[in-house]
Amino acid sequence: MRIIENGTITSVAGFKAGAVNCRIKDTDKNDLGLIVGDQKSVCAGVFTQNMVRSKTIDISRKNIENNDIKAIIVNSGNANACVGQKGYDDALTMTKLVAKELNIKKEEVVVASTGVIGQELPIEKIENGIKEVVKNLKEDGGEEVVKAIMTTDLIAKNIAVEIKLEDGKKVKIAGIAKGSGMIHPNMATMLGFITTDMNIKKEVLQDLLRETTNKTFNMISVDRDTSTNDMVIVLANGMVESEKVENSNSLDYEMFKRGLYYVMEYLAKSIARDGEGATKLIEVEVENATTFEDAKKVGKSVINSPLVKTAIYGEDANWGRIIAAVGYSGALVSEPEIDIFVGDIQVCKNGIGILESEAEINEMLKLDEIKIKIDLKLGVEKAKVWGCDLTYDYIKINADYRS
Amino acid sequence: MRIIENGTITSVAGFKAGAVNCRIKDTDKNDLGLIVGDQKSVCAGVFTQNMVRSKTIDISRKNIENNDIKAIIVNSGNANACVGQKGYDDALTMTKLVAKELNIKKEEVVVASTGVIGQELPIEKIENGIKEVVKNLKEDGGEEVVKAIMTTDLIAKNIAVEIKLEDGKKVKIAGIAKGSGMIHPNMATMLGFITTDMNIKKEVLQDLLRETTNKTFNMISVDRDTSTNDMVIVLANGMVESEKVENSNSLDYEMFKRGLYYVMEYLAKSIARDGEGATKLIEVEVENATTFEDAKKVGKSVINSPLVKTAIYGEDANWGRIIAAVGYSGALVSEPEIDIFVGDIQVCKNGIGILESEAEINEMLKLDEIKIKIDLKLGVEKAKVWGCDLTYDYIKINADYRS
Repeated sequence: MRIIENGTITSVAGFKAGAVNCRIKDTDKNDLGLIVGDQKSVCAGVFTQNMVRSKTIDISRKNIENNDIKAIIVNSGNANACVGQKGYDDALTMTKLVAKELNIKKEEVVVASTGVIGQELPIEKIENGIKEVVKNLKEDGGEEVVKAIMTTDLIAKNIAVEIKLEDGKKVKIAGIAKGSGMIHPNMATMLGFITTDMNIKKEVLQDLLRETTNKTFNMISVDRDTSTNDMVIVLANGMVESEKVENSNSLDYEMFKRGLYYVMEYLAKSIARDGEGATKLIEVEVENATTFEDAKKVGKSVINSPLVKTAIYGEDANWGRIIAAVGYSGALVSEPEIDIFVGDIQVCKNGIGILESEAEINEMLKLDEIKIKIDLKLGVEKAKVWGCDLTYDYIKINADYRS
Repeated sequence: MRIIENGTITSVAGFKAGAVNCRIKDTDKNDLGLIVGDQKSVCAGVFTQNMVRSKTIDISRKNIENNDIKAIIVNSGNANACVGQKGYDDALTMTKLVAKELNIKKEEVVVASTGVIGQELPIEKIENGIKEVVKNLKEDGGEEVVKAIMTTDLIAKNIAVEIKLEDGKKVKIAGIAKGSGMIHPNMATMLGFITTDMNIKKEVLQDLLRETTNKTFNMISVDRDTSTNDMVIVLANGMVESEKVENSNSLDYEMFKRGLYYVMEYLAKSIARDGEGATKLIEVEVENATTFEDAKKVGKSVINSPLVKTAIYGEDANWGRIIAAVGYSGALVSEPEIDIFVGDIQVCKNGIGILESEAEINEMLKLDEIKIKIDLKLGVEKAKVWGCDLTYDYIKINADYRS
């Protein structure tokens, strides 16, 4: 597998993209992005499980289920959520306008929105924006789209890799994502768009997306807040001209899976690292739990603990807060078995603190990636989760985000 | 029911208390408190359900199960948790020392600790402290104890009420509590000590304590972090010389229940209001859920959302964050039914924003108690939870609490 330098979704043959500013919010930043395939793509998607959700979720899910997909239209600045019937009408209008401009069916369009909840979409502005953005599609427009969907994100999240199939053909897998706050994905997350020229059956792609989402996007958390608008979409245009992957029993499937996992983990970690106000990426690896679910519970409990998050921000090896979060996670744990490592320094053995050198660990806590390993010594299952520290800037950003 | 002015646990006849500074941490503040009954009390207790817990929990639970109780010894500055066998030995030593000084059995002593997790207790200092505090017991020493158990608390939490029984006799119920961070009780919470001269059967008292805890202490959350050391203890010395309450079918039981509920809700709300860094008390009332559990889930989801907490801190009526938290709560909700009120202003009707006057709501958000009401319009169950806003000071306190 090769990482493509400065790669983004348009690094994959057969995809164009572009963005414009249609002034949904009054800034100089683009806020409407369009991704278009030269041909239709097999498409898989995962969506928020929040019971309160944007109507974009319902329309996009239905379109993906029943159709191959030609285009994705996405706006930032307004989530088009909690506005009643108008939300559905506006989302549908967006698919119709894109379909009209591109001369395709509206059911071949995925629609996504991100931004403030509970305000009606300025649909006239978006109507004009769509006409404009269609004229603005570029062979290398992926970077423009990722910038257009950023809200409180500070970093544009782009990645592209190339894998080699058994027959020697090369396949590209590329992705973009946005997300910084209201991040606690439950199935999908924020917005993630992935392109590939892989030739793969729709059902196989859908299963693989779900499986990989559960190990990547669903393993991150910034603030335990699951958004109303999360979605991750994969478009596979099949342009590689290699034999189609029809099931999960082939080397090509495994190669593709590895590439997709890499892209998705990269994007998920990028979101955690760029969590609102974050100064550090935190990785919690839980080993030897009795079930995967328990390993995940422990990891999520630690990564979400405000006390752990503030201790890491304060560069304080306060492992007592880590073990407390292990204990209340709801997972089966045995206090006299628990080992905890911060970086490669063991701080707790058999439930008891053994930290010898504060100086050594304090030096390590200055890094901008902190790894915490928790060995439960009960079973054989493991899980890895990602999050970030909790800082003054999280408060600053969220105490007046809307205003 | 009458609120006793400046009431505390020693407002109840037959209880003395006192505190000393034995320098567990190097401050000028008292850190060891003792509560002693003139006679033995029927005792009920609820304890943390964190699977990682202080050995004080195990010893106190066992003592309460098998004995009437004469004394409670409690220290701050050190949680006596996650230190292995020494933790058990030290907690047992504390009960032995108190028993020796008071000439009672060690099984008649409840022991509690609060403070940093994972550091061994300086047991020699405590040994000297116990000898000293026994000489320092006072008829009005309750206020001294509540101050001695404060850690990051800013406000001493005291309350006493008087109820009248059917026969005209008056019973007092008084309580103290500590807690400010690592507050997300799961059954009991932080430390709460309640005294009363009620004459009540142990089993009836235990059931009532559990029931009332579930509606009061278990309904608050500062930071979702369940402590390793939570406990709430009620001592009922029976000195009222009224007929003993043997079951829950009497007016006296109901009067006592009302008083106990008042004391416990007061203490629980005091803890939420004094949450680390908090500037506002937030109350979330959820109405018309299909089950009590669902009402609680929705309330806890909203009260724990960092995005809601920061919006309240920022005095911003960002109700979109409230409805998002309702949606991901895990409870059964129907978006087109949800009504949300902030104070007495409706901001969302049938899942759609209807906020008309931003000025009016912004004025209301300046108050230091914010009430949020969520009407799910699905069933008939309700729940009320309390929490606080998330502020710069929470970060400040917790980024360097230990150091």
